[in-house]
Amino acid sequence: MRLFWRQGYEATALVDLLAATGLSKSSLYATFGGKRDLFLAALDAYREEQFGEFRTIVSRGTGRDALETYFRRIVARDRDPDYSFGCLAVCQLVEMAPRDADVRQRLLADVDSGVDAFAEVIARGQADGSIRNQRTPRQIATLFSVAFPGLQALVRAGADRAMLDEALTVLLSNLD
Amino acid sequence: MRLFWRQGYEATALVDLLAATGLSKSSLYATFGGKRDLFLAALDAYREEQFGEFRTIVSRGTGRDALETYFRRIVARDRDPDYSFGCLAVCQLVEMAPRDADVRQRLLADVDSGVDAFAEVIARGQADGSIRNQRTPRQIATLFSVAFPGLQALVRAGADRAMLDEALTVLLSNLD
Repeated sequence: MRLFWRQGYEATALVDLLAATGLSKSSLYATFGGKRDLFLAALDAYREEQFGEFRTIVSRGTGRDALETYFRRIVARDRDPDYSFGCLAVCQLVEMAPRDADVRQRLLADVDSGVDAFAEVIARGQADGSIRNQRTPRQIATLFSVAFPGLQALVRAGADRAMLDEALTVLLSNLD
Repeated sequence: MRLFWRQGYEATALVDLLAATGLSKSSLYATFGGKRDLFLAALDAYREEQFGEFRTIVSRGTGRDALETYFRRIVARDRDPDYSFGCLAVCQLVEMAPRDADVRQRLLADVDSGVDAFAEVIARGQADGSIRNQRTPRQIATLFSVAFPGLQALVRAGADRAMLDEALTVLLSNLD
């Protein structure tokens, strides 16, 4: 998962996967069926991990605090060697989704689930009074769903943190 | 340029480039110095083309109309075979910027220029009365600079157009 996350699908050679997993070529094929199947398994593990992390983070505090914590964290950990690669799913929206229907189907389902998940937190914030914008939760959620991959791509490329922090301040003002 | 745009850097083989350019391997090496140099030349041609297009589009109408036209167009042409690949520069923020300093330096300079360019249009809109948000033009511009790669990544992956249109409506309401 970390290799595909850091390097992408095409740039990850079978020999890199053998070294990272400690498997022989025949064991890797017997266990995972090959590079693409291993990649799909890694992507699925990543998706599950990330949705779990999202649910844990947004379970705390007001709706507004929850969204702010989740988004600020993406930028705050841009120097953390484990997270400065951005988001594997966002990388794959760009790399494999256009040419692999199984990847595309998974990631577009995640985009939809993301809108639903953001909308749920926004509805909670409207109910607890922390979010005053009276558009529907789904409308507001679509903006966060577009900002999310933008932010992740910019973190991965190493964009200026002060600029990203400023962008988040304006993004979060959409909850006012 | 179109090959790298559609397929990315790693997935584009030398043989694809020979077929697309009609050059022999020795002519391609003599003219461009190899795959990576040809890629940098293609990326530079793309960057120049896109900034030129941006300047033409935003030269017309109020500041608000100009920004709206520019952003709506990204989503509106998502079924156009020439543009449904999203944006080469955004793809490369994800693919090569993390591991190629020459690509990173170019694209991060473009992110900065993008903030400046959006800020200039926003300042014009504040002056002509079409943009009422009284944050500084640069602050507002940072949100558009984060939304831009997000939108391009989602267009490339084939995300639902109604969702993207809704997100743009909320994004553009930041000019109110």
